[in-house]
Amino acid sequence: MPVEICAGIDIGGTNTAFAFVDLKGQIVYKDSIPTGKETQPQDLVDRVCEKISAQLSAHKNDYSLVGIGIGAPNGNYFNGTIEFAPNLSWRGIIPIAKYFSDRMSVPAYLTNDANAAALGEMFFGAAKGVKDFIFVTLGTGLGSGIVCNGEMIYGHDGFAGELGHTIVVQHGRQCGCGRRGCLEQYCSATGLVKTYLEILTSANPENPILANKELIDSKFIYEKAMGGDEDAFYAFNYTGEMLGFALANSVAYTSPKAIFLFGGLASAGELLFNPTILSFDKNILNIYKNKVSILPSALPENDAALLGTASLAWNELQRKK
Amino acid sequence: MPVEICAGIDIGGTNTAFAFVDLKGQIVYKDSIPTGKETQPQDLVDRVCEKISAQLSAHKNDYSLVGIGIGAPNGNYFNGTIEFAPNLSWRGIIPIAKYFSDRMSVPAYLTNDANAAALGEMFFGAAKGVKDFIFVTLGTGLGSGIVCNGEMIYGHDGFAGELGHTIVVQHGRQCGCGRRGCLEQYCSATGLVKTYLEILTSANPENPILANKELIDSKFIYEKAMGGDEDAFYAFNYTGEMLGFALANSVAYTSPKAIFLFGGLASAGELLFNPTILSFDKNILNIYKNKVSILPSALPENDAALLGTASLAWNELQRKK
Repeated sequence: MPVEICAGIDIGGTNTAFAFVDLKGQIVYKDSIPTGKETQPQDLVDRVCEKISAQLSAHKNDYSLVGIGIGAPNGNYFNGTIEFAPNLSWRGIIPIAKYFSDRMSVPAYLTNDANAAALGEMFFGAAKGVKDFIFVTLGTGLGSGIVCNGEMIYGHDGFAGELGHTIVVQHGRQCGCGRRGCLEQYCSATGLVKTYLEILTSANPENPILANKELIDSKFIYEKAMGGDEDAFYAFNYTGEMLGFALANSVAYTSPKAIFLFGGLASAGELLFNPTILSFDKNILNIYKNKVSILPSALPENDAALLGTASLAWNELQRKK
Repeated sequence: MPVEICAGIDIGGTNTAFAFVDLKGQIVYKDSIPTGKETQPQDLVDRVCEKISAQLSAHKNDYSLVGIGIGAPNGNYFNGTIEFAPNLSWRGIIPIAKYFSDRMSVPAYLTNDANAAALGEMFFGAAKGVKDFIFVTLGTGLGSGIVCNGEMIYGHDGFAGELGHTIVVQHGRQCGCGRRGCLEQYCSATGLVKTYLEILTSANPENPILANKELIDSKFIYEKAMGGDEDAFYAFNYTGEMLGFALANSVAYTSPKAIFLFGGLASAGELLFNPTILSFDKNILNIYKNKVSILPSALPENDAALLGTASLAWNELQRKK
């Protein structure tokens, strides 16, 4: 008997990665191709499906494809459409789930990257068996997925869970969304760099490091902090302080059992977790005290998007049973 | 055939009100008794059940009791227990749902007042057919209930939806919860009075009104504002500005279709709604723009708690079908 697998497809601005994932979370095949610019979305669907189909034909006795999960920026769960995604070259509203479903003759589901990763955590990661949690990705920006009573919260329009764009500082840092003071301007790789530059500039605007700002990224700051640099350490501290504050507020919405942190910044470990937890404990409402754990994600960073998108399909298929 | 009814029981610090409500939201009987101090919780249960039982006996052919919904401060939905409620004289953890259920031989359910009212709005009010909404009560404090995909969000511990205790101003006004800057210190009757007093004091600390601060409540400020008093008008303005800001943030969590405002302050109408909606539109993330309505509750203020608690029971009974 061939093993049932779902395909996870992660569409990014540069590359589109895809994988076959079984119900245990084993990745039995993975590959990626350039997303391509200035082309029709159907071209991408064609190129991905050719690869997938070839793999399925070559392993007829091994795998049977039962569903497809897709992750994409501005992916709308309800319609299966990518809507005006700023990082992709296609304009307007693209019915991407339908394209894949028609082509492969299995159900296809779409959501955004952070929601997909949250489902991955629930199916194959540290959130197994946790019915109420918040998943936060700390990358270039801050993405999130909220799960309540075992169900992903999509909201009425499919766009729930944008914690990165809650305003934490009125009249604060300028955000790409056009507003000011959004959480992701403080708690993300971008935010960490801004904080570090602010600290350096306010201490000494002539600091030679500032002449080469483009060299300063979150990895640079991490290494500085690990080497004992106080400014870098303080930048992490401030990032954690803001994150703990924001997460304490978020608990008052859905009262999760755990909050999982994922992504580059989360892998800084104690440098980020210590100040985050300290600030979280300080800012949380009494009735929630000592009930909520802030934990690192257990998803492997490189495969999280693929495990997440495949989980989306597995989740939908299991709900239907 | 007798009509099926649920009893709604609203336990407050001073009085306990109760009613019979049919599935159409008709209140066919209501009454209330003093909650009483220094007594055992069972005494209250006895006194309520005597009244209820007498009514049922006298109307055997008219009504048949099928469930009980209870609203109480610090009411835990999952356990049916009132936990360390500051406004009630009973200590510790009180299994109030079990007491009522045992006594009346029907299922009994418990939640807090705001969640119950949110369910009332969903069953009998303006949220009929709305699957994703946030319900906000603006009374002495600010309570809230969050509904996603037609389900009340209780969180892992039964205490989700405490929007009144999200911190909106770091190092802001002292809150009764021990922290500073909670939303309810700005957006509630209490918050409005604080704002008004701040405005008066900063304009003229010798203002004779300030000699009789105890006369200043939200009704006083409302009447002043309606009479053209600029300070009172500005106090409402600031309250709405803060509320609109906080609600815009709250949309990024669960992406509701509508937000319903209930309670004394909400009945100030345009005085509160205009600045709230203005600030909400200004502060909301682009992808949510023009999708979310801020609306007045359609529940009659005096019966909201009774309709809400009865809805809790109706909701649970219907979910079981």
